[in-house]
Amino acid sequence: MNPSIERICEQILETATPKPDERKRVQRLAEKLRQRVAVEAERAGLEAEVKIGGSVAKDTWLSGEADIDVFMLVPTSLGRERLEKDCLDVAKKAVEGWPWTERYAEHPYLEAHVEGTRVNVVPCYRVKRGEWVSAADRTPFHTEYVKKKLAEKNLRDEIRLLKRFMRGVGVYGAEIRIGGFSGYLCELLVLNYRSFLGTLKAVSGWRRGHVIDVESFYRGRSEEIRKLFDAPLIVVDPVDKNRNVAAAVSDDRLGEFIAASRLFLGKPRETFFYPPETVPFEASDFRERLRARGTDIILMTFDGVDVVPDVLWGQLYRSLRSLKGLLRQYDFSVMRASAWSDEKTMNVLLFELESKDLSASRKHVGPPVDSKEAANFLEKHVGAESTVSGPWVEDGRWMIETKRKCADAVLLLREKLRVGGRDVGVASKLAESVRTSLKLLANEEIVDLCSSNPGFAKFLTGYLIGRPRWLHS
Amino acid sequence: MNPSIERICEQILETATPKPDERKRVQRLAEKLRQRVAVEAERAGLEAEVKIGGSVAKDTWLSGEADIDVFMLVPTSLGRERLEKDCLDVAKKAVEGWPWTERYAEHPYLEAHVEGTRVNVVPCYRVKRGEWVSAADRTPFHTEYVKKKLAEKNLRDEIRLLKRFMRGVGVYGAEIRIGGFSGYLCELLVLNYRSFLGTLKAVSGWRRGHVIDVESFYRGRSEEIRKLFDAPLIVVDPVDKNRNVAAAVSDDRLGEFIAASRLFLGKPRETFFYPPETVPFEASDFRERLRARGTDIILMTFDGVDVVPDVLWGQLYRSLRSLKGLLRQYDFSVMRASAWSDEKTMNVLLFELESKDLSASRKHVGPPVDSKEAANFLEKHVGAESTVSGPWVEDGRWMIETKRKCADAVLLLREKLRVGGRDVGVASKLAESVRTSLKLLANEEIVDLCSSNPGFAKFLTGYLIGRPRWLHS
Repeated sequence: MNPSIERICEQILETATPKPDERKRVQRLAEKLRQRVAVEAERAGLEAEVKIGGSVAKDTWLSGEADIDVFMLVPTSLGRERLEKDCLDVAKKAVEGWPWTERYAEHPYLEAHVEGTRVNVVPCYRVKRGEWVSAADRTPFHTEYVKKKLAEKNLRDEIRLLKRFMRGVGVYGAEIRIGGFSGYLCELLVLNYRSFLGTLKAVSGWRRGHVIDVESFYRGRSEEIRKLFDAPLIVVDPVDKNRNVAAAVSDDRLGEFIAASRLFLGKPRETFFYPPETVPFEASDFRERLRARGTDIILMTFDGVDVVPDVLWGQLYRSLRSLKGLLRQYDFSVMRASAWSDEKTMNVLLFELESKDLSASRKHVGPPVDSKEAANFLEKHVGAESTVSGPWVEDGRWMIETKRKCADAVLLLREKLRVGGRDVGVASKLAESVRTSLKLLANEEIVDLCSSNPGFAKFLTGYLIGRPRWLHS
Repeated sequence: MNPSIERICEQILETATPKPDERKRVQRLAEKLRQRVAVEAERAGLEAEVKIGGSVAKDTWLSGEADIDVFMLVPTSLGRERLEKDCLDVAKKAVEGWPWTERYAEHPYLEAHVEGTRVNVVPCYRVKRGEWVSAADRTPFHTEYVKKKLAEKNLRDEIRLLKRFMRGVGVYGAEIRIGGFSGYLCELLVLNYRSFLGTLKAVSGWRRGHVIDVESFYRGRSEEIRKLFDAPLIVVDPVDKNRNVAAAVSDDRLGEFIAASRLFLGKPRETFFYPPETVPFEASDFRERLRARGTDIILMTFDGVDVVPDVLWGQLYRSLRSLKGLLRQYDFSVMRASAWSDEKTMNVLLFELESKDLSASRKHVGPPVDSKEAANFLEKHVGAESTVSGPWVEDGRWMIETKRKCADAVLLLREKLRVGGRDVGVASKLAESVRTSLKLLANEEIVDLCSSNPGFAKFLTGYLIGRPRWLHS
């Protein structure tokens, strides 16, 4: 007999809820950092309210995964430039001695690693609700909103279950690489559906374009919302009716969340929360698998570029889409494409084609025989070097069989990417690296890369299996 | 300088109009056969009115191409069985000593070859207009209609020009093999547009579904006509408003006629009337051409079957369409397909594919993740032998990469045609021959067949050039 759903949830909570020791350690660390930032701000003469925000403030964090968010709220009289410079200077002093990086995607912040815990120091403006200046100004309001709601009804266990579930099925995280659900969005779902299982039941019935309007800002006007936001999932922010909290959620992550919810409710298992790690294949396995599937896998590798992860992944995904389009435009049947990066030294775009070699000729559908264009078409193609056969009349149109400009996908990519590929849609910050360091590998040539790069080997293994880790037979 | 269009028409008429000698010979022969049929009918006690019909009666035949049609009009009191048996017995006696064949497509008739001329003896019922019993009963009315109109205005030169043009561009003939324009249809076009050039000018502006209602039976109700007939071209029969004289005209012949009309008017040349014969390639040319186009040509050959040409070609075309569909259903990219037969010993279906070999696996698009079918899909494919990768979620659907059932087109055809191919759409009268005598050849294997069969070599040459013989660079 399978364990009951309640029993599984109990066991998961056991591991997902921080124990008193861990909780104490994190709270002490958070308070220590809050004070250090406050002291440094004062020293720098910066009028700043320093608060702990995020899941630590709300007590909704997962055991072993605490992120400490320290917010510096400054007056709007401090210009944008000083927000970025002065505040980050303060932050750097506060974390002196620990390793840190400057992050800048929508807004600038400092990420440090302190005693094994990730700490984000995030400057923002202290504003009235609705009078947002920088992108992070809403976040303290989010924290307050959730804290207030959780004070009315303690749903922290339910939130931790949902976060753990989302983490397990791979849809947790609003960063571009993932395109999934933020912690705040996860909390809103539980507040809305009142429990973990209630959420999964509701999600099982979601369709693309589902709308949740927690505070009923648009009561009875859901069509208006869809026009306003146009996203796979729309969750109106309770602190800002013009913002979709789920804007980052991609079609694929939404689909996976719906699929996983349905499957979990049908056949509950712990593996949805803690799926097995992917164990990379051996070189011989890779060779065997690649041969057995009988398709062609082409890999583009190029050196890392110096941008923050959100920018990098945005550029990788955009380039992937463009090049997939390029291959299709040349008639290659692209079955699937994927991107991988170690975010430092190496980027990879992978394309799987039915075949990297096409027939030397193709059928070309010309204009209708009764159209104006017919004469030009004949002028151009009758007796032309490239015309292999025809023109003939079929279905009321002129047709020819013509030589392909390029029948080899590797050659096509090599040619189009020779100077970086900007004109075929390689994103701006990647083009230079593509120009100078591009390597194109096909099929078994890829296997050597796996031997020298365990991260890539794990990615490729997952790609070849092609199945979410939580999905069982 | 190109010769003027008028000069070309004059020259063509010169050769297309029968000279007095030929005319006298044909008229004498026609009258002789009419009398022989009348005498034999009387001997057999058959009450029959015997008349010359068709283009000889109307004096619209092309020099060198006279067909003598002898009609036996009998009373409807003679039952269907006696029409078929007694009349054909009479016909056989009338042509005794000359070679003849019994023909039966829509209606039975006798075809004989007398002194180098084809003679058709066609029994039909003598009926009032509109009270048709057999399919041939309208024909004497067609002859009368055209004769009467030509008595008002002699357009015989114009008709001969159009017939010669249609013959030249390959659209003349209502038989199934051609799917083109009958002599009667050609005459109606000239009667309608008043001249050869007037016809070509009008045709240049035709679109698919063009309607001509010579006698204005449906004045102002052309939409009604389209619903009634639904054909690429609709010409309402002046002697029967329920019949489309152009019912036999296929989309491709209509398209070619429109295309040729436009091109001829733009750049008049004699070659539209007398295009050069196709000169078959040498074996080495065939090999070179096949290699150069870089596609795969598959040939199905099987022994002749004992049916009249109209039935044979109907069955060949139907089988060709079905098997093209079969190949496409298995993902093969069929560029073009064609049929050939010597109408006696050998039939050929030809398929040109981008490639006869597909990738061993293909992407299979499954049901939406939020559908009822999702559970069954996963049940069936997760961990299945045939599943190469996945299932994964993409565009809101489950997807897998799965092994193809058949990735080789020759194997597919061999397997599906093993017992005749009735269930994959091989037409009934061909299946037995396919079962017992099918050969499948690919690419250069075809070349040997060309060496031993000049008729096929000519067909294949035309196919590979793929361009109407009248189309010039």
